[in-house]
Amino acid sequence: MRIAIDAMGGDHAPEEIVAGAIEGLAHLGEDDELVLIGQQEQVVRELKRSGYDESHDRISLVDARDVIGMGEHPVDSLRQKRDSSIAKMAELAARGEVDALIGAGNTGACVAACQMKIRPLKGVHRPGIAVVIPSFGGPMILCDVGANVAPKPHHMHQYALMCGIYAEHLLALPHSARVALLSIGEEDAKGNPLVRQVRDVLKADARINFVGYVEGRTLLSGQADVVICDGFVGNVVLKLIEGLADGLVKLLAKDVAGSHPELAKSFDPLLKELWQKHDYSEYGGAPLLGVDGVCIVCHGSSDRRAIKNAVAVASKMTSSNINERIVEFMNPDGALSPSD
Amino acid sequence: MRIAIDAMGGDHAPEEIVAGAIEGLAHLGEDDELVLIGQQEQVVRELKRSGYDESHDRISLVDARDVIGMGEHPVDSLRQKRDSSIAKMAELAARGEVDALIGAGNTGACVAACQMKIRPLKGVHRPGIAVVIPSFGGPMILCDVGANVAPKPHHMHQYALMCGIYAEHLLALPHSARVALLSIGEEDAKGNPLVRQVRDVLKADARINFVGYVEGRTLLSGQADVVICDGFVGNVVLKLIEGLADGLVKLLAKDVAGSHPELAKSFDPLLKELWQKHDYSEYGGAPLLGVDGVCIVCHGSSDRRAIKNAVAVASKMTSSNINERIVEFMNPDGALSPSD
Repeated sequence: MRIAIDAMGGDHAPEEIVAGAIEGLAHLGEDDELVLIGQQEQVVRELKRSGYDESHDRISLVDARDVIGMGEHPVDSLRQKRDSSIAKMAELAARGEVDALIGAGNTGACVAACQMKIRPLKGVHRPGIAVVIPSFGGPMILCDVGANVAPKPHHMHQYALMCGIYAEHLLALPHSARVALLSIGEEDAKGNPLVRQVRDVLKADARINFVGYVEGRTLLSGQADVVICDGFVGNVVLKLIEGLADGLVKLLAKDVAGSHPELAKSFDPLLKELWQKHDYSEYGGAPLLGVDGVCIVCHGSSDRRAIKNAVAVASKMTSSNINERIVEFMNPDGALSPSD
Repeated sequence: MRIAIDAMGGDHAPEEIVAGAIEGLAHLGEDDELVLIGQQEQVVRELKRSGYDESHDRISLVDARDVIGMGEHPVDSLRQKRDSSIAKMAELAARGEVDALIGAGNTGACVAACQMKIRPLKGVHRPGIAVVIPSFGGPMILCDVGANVAPKPHHMHQYALMCGIYAEHLLALPHSARVALLSIGEEDAKGNPLVRQVRDVLKADARINFVGYVEGRTLLSGQADVVICDGFVGNVVLKLIEGLADGLVKLLAKDVAGSHPELAKSFDPLLKELWQKHDYSEYGGAPLLGVDGVCIVCHGSSDRRAIKNAVAVASKMTSSNINERIVEFMNPDGALSPSD
């Protein structure tokens, strides 16, 4: 197995990405290999600084001179920066030279590169990012969180089908995945026109264990294994969870330090533990479901632990038959679905 | 001043509504009056149970036989239940018999009744619900949170104009309100088609102190006084904040009780205080901005404290000149805007 990593992608690149890659080797078999893509002199310097022994021969390098910044326009930057690490990584995957890719850089550019260069799974119209988030009832999957900000109902229908399979695999569910749709109330009449259309499609599809709407308040209560939403709403929700949990924990730590300094020592580890329960980087990146390959999109703020975990996710997904199962599920009669 | 309250609306009606109304009298002047609308025998029973002295003569009753349930379709239920407390309340306001109304029942029905029966402010196309939420930088206003789930760009433009005035009044800002737009990144290229259109309109309007996009992670950081979004996204966000804050606080209390029972006593009041900081019922209901009247929409879970606070908000808004200022602001040259 060969897994490509964009060494230049993310707020802490290349230091943390390279360090995370080295740590990630522990998740791989002896014959597996990582491919670091980026400005070679920088990557080599980080490898040396991290004390990696080159004779181990399990990390190879691919030089890419351009770097796409976090704020750049996805498609424009890919067109202008043909020698970027993101573009080169997607090309390696498209040519079958790597089995999986991992990117923590500009999410839009990463998704666009995968969509442009790697073919979709048979029958899939648009890929979606499926992220694992910690709910109060255990881990669950939210999709889409930003690949597709203006989805059509049939795109969201396909997210539900793909995520059902992904959830059953990743969460090792003993039952068929409970799929919900994010809306603004529990009753059928609630929602916007898109959501109401998707609800009708999900209800009518016997392959989906559709459990109805969840709203913001019950999203994290654990009543569903998969929650489907449009990529704009999903991205807002994902980042809000992070911002609010982080802010509340910090505020509480400050309150305790100010009013009960004697408690702070016993209390801080509890807060840290709580925070880890709600830190989705624990789950190491989110797959772009629907492309014919394994593309793992990581948070821009990924540190070495997140990258290490992403290597584990990429490896596990590559060894699985998720994509084959998605194709079977999407094409039950072997016929092609209409193209988008 | 006369303020109408739907005594049958909300999860804890009529008990908590009636009790909150009685407590709310403390916020009113001696000549001010509350009008409770609902099934008269139930309202009278609750008034008696709460020990209200009828000779005080500051609460009057209007009988309404029908009740619209929380899950009913807003427009259909209003059509079928012509004698509902929500419909009657909006009619009282439309006829000028009350100066303000407060509803904690079916939000959609409450908004629809106000839209159908009360005329819009001159120049306003669609009303929006503007809720105060506690951010880590102090209170801020989020609009719309559910009145309009499929807004057009000019609706959101008007929310920005109206909320600027409301924020300056309510938060007593010493500067012109900083208005942001909720999106999925800080850069201009981010967002969905609607959000990018609204951004262009807000940027071009010199009356608005537009500070750009905020994303989910920075929404609560206090960098804006007003955040504009579509009513679907706003409703998801509002309820997610509530659900996540509530869940985290409960989880932490459980962790402390389990692992450090000796700390629980000192810790629980801290958590309670933290929770109150993030409990938006403290702010007592949200105005439906853009109608020619004062319509305060409360959370379905409103207890007596929330209703009491809503009376204070309704009274303060009735005494203010917010609606006049909105009309001046929306019609700078005295001309009518095109109708929706």
